[in-house]
Amino acid sequence: MKLPNHIGIIPDGNRRWACKNNMEKEKGYEFGLISGIKLFKCCEKLGIKELTYYGFTTDNTKRPSIQRKAFTKACVKAVKMLFKENASLLVVGNTNSPMFPKELLPYTVRKRLGNGGMKLNFLVNYGWEWDLGKSVDCHFTNRSSIISNLNSHDISRVDLIIRWGGRRRLSGFLPVQSVYSDFYIIDDYWPDFKNEHLMQALEWYNHQDITLGG
Amino acid sequence: MKLPNHIGIIPDGNRRWACKNNMEKEKGYEFGLISGIKLFKCCEKLGIKELTYYGFTTDNTKRPSIQRKAFTKACVKAVKMLFKENASLLVVGNTNSPMFPKELLPYTVRKRLGNGGMKLNFLVNYGWEWDLGKSVDCHFTNRSSIISNLNSHDISRVDLIIRWGGRRRLSGFLPVQSVYSDFYIIDDYWPDFKNEHLMQALEWYNHQDITLGG
Repeated sequence: MKLPNHIGIIPDGNRRWACKNNMEKEKGYEFGLISGIKLFKCCEKLGIKELTYYGFTTDNTKRPSIQRKAFTKACVKAVKMLFKENASLLVVGNTNSPMFPKELLPYTVRKRLGNGGMKLNFLVNYGWEWDLGKSVDCHFTNRSSIISNLNSHDISRVDLIIRWGGRRRLSGFLPVQSVYSDFYIIDDYWPDFKNEHLMQALEWYNHQDITLGG
Repeated sequence: MKLPNHIGIIPDGNRRWACKNNMEKEKGYEFGLISGIKLFKCCEKLGIKELTYYGFTTDNTKRPSIQRKAFTKACVKAVKMLFKENASLLVVGNTNSPMFPKELLPYTVRKRLGNGGMKLNFLVNYGWEWDLGKSVDCHFTNRSSIISNLNSHDISRVDLIIRWGGRRRLSGFLPVQSVYSDFYIIDDYWPDFKNEHLMQALEWYNHQDITLGG
C-alpha cells in the first residue's frame, strides 16, 4: 500500500457538532481533543512520517471572543497532550500577535519528545499571508528558495489533506506546501473522528496517480 | 441563487479520454476545445464575472514532446477561439521561456474584445513558483501587497474551482487566489463537458456557507 509521507489535517465541524448535540457552539472544540490523539496514534502505528494539524488561524480569531477563547484553549491542551507522545513537535504560527497563546511559545522551536519519531506540526494563529510574507531573500524565483523563505519552511510538502465536516476547501492551509496535495473530504464532524475515516482516506490515496503536476 | 464571481477551470482528463476512445494520448487535447467554448458561453449567459482556464503549466512541459506540442497547439487555438467572443482577455504565464508559444505574446496584455463583458484569464506556461517568485517589493507582509506582487496580480480571488477528470487536487493552480476557493470535482473527462456539469457545480456552490476562512 502506497502511504503518504505527510498528512495535513483540517479538523472542521466542531461548532456544528456542538449544535447537533444541543450544546453552545464553543463547547465543540474540547470534544475534538480525543480525536486528535486517536488520529495521532493511528498514524504512528502506520508509520506516517509527518503530520500537520490545522489548529486555528488568524482569520478564525475574528470570531466571537467566547469561541476564540474556547478554540485557543483547546489548541493549548492539544499541544500539551501531544507533548506526551513520541514525536518531533513544532508549533508554527504568528507569535507577534496577542492572539498567539503565550503558553505555546516554548513549542515554537522543534522538540524531540520521548523516542522521537514522527515529525509533528501544529499550526496555531497561522495565516497564509503571514506565512508568505516573510520574504527575507528579495530575489527568490525558484522552488527551493520560495519554500526556504516561508515562515513555515520547516514543514514539508503535504501529500494528502484530510478535512472533516464536509467542506471542500483549504481555508488558507499551507498554500505552498499544498500545491500538489490530494484532498479527501469526510462529511462527519471532527469530534466524531473514527480510525476508519483515516483508513478510507488512505485507501483512496493508494489508488491516486501521483504526478506532482507533471 | 448565489453565483460565484470568479470560476477557475481545471480541464483535466484529455489524455485519459483519448485512451478511452482508442486514440493516442496526445490526440485528446483538441477534443477539449469545443468544451472550452461551450463552457464560456454558458458562463456568459449566467452572468459570471470572471473565468480562469488552466491551460498548461511549466510542470506539464516536462511531458513527452509529442504531448507538449499537442497541448500547446490546443491552447493557442483555444485563445484564438475565445478572441472572437465578448470578453476582456488576458493570457498569464512565464513568457521568458521557450515553452511559451510566441503566437500568444500579443495576448499577455489585457484586451477588450467585442462588447467586453466577462474578465477572462487563460494560464499558459504557468508555474506556481513563477507566480510567487516575482517579489519586487521586498517587504510585503499584508494580503494586498502579497497579491499585488504576484505575477498573476490581475487575476482575482477564485470563488469556485471546477476540476474535470476526477482528481482532487489543485496541481499548482493559483495558490494565492485559491486559498478560500470551494472545489467541485467532476468525474467525467474534460472533452465530455456538458452544460449540466457547470449547473451541478453551481447548484452545489449555492448551498455552501462561504466564510473566507472566518
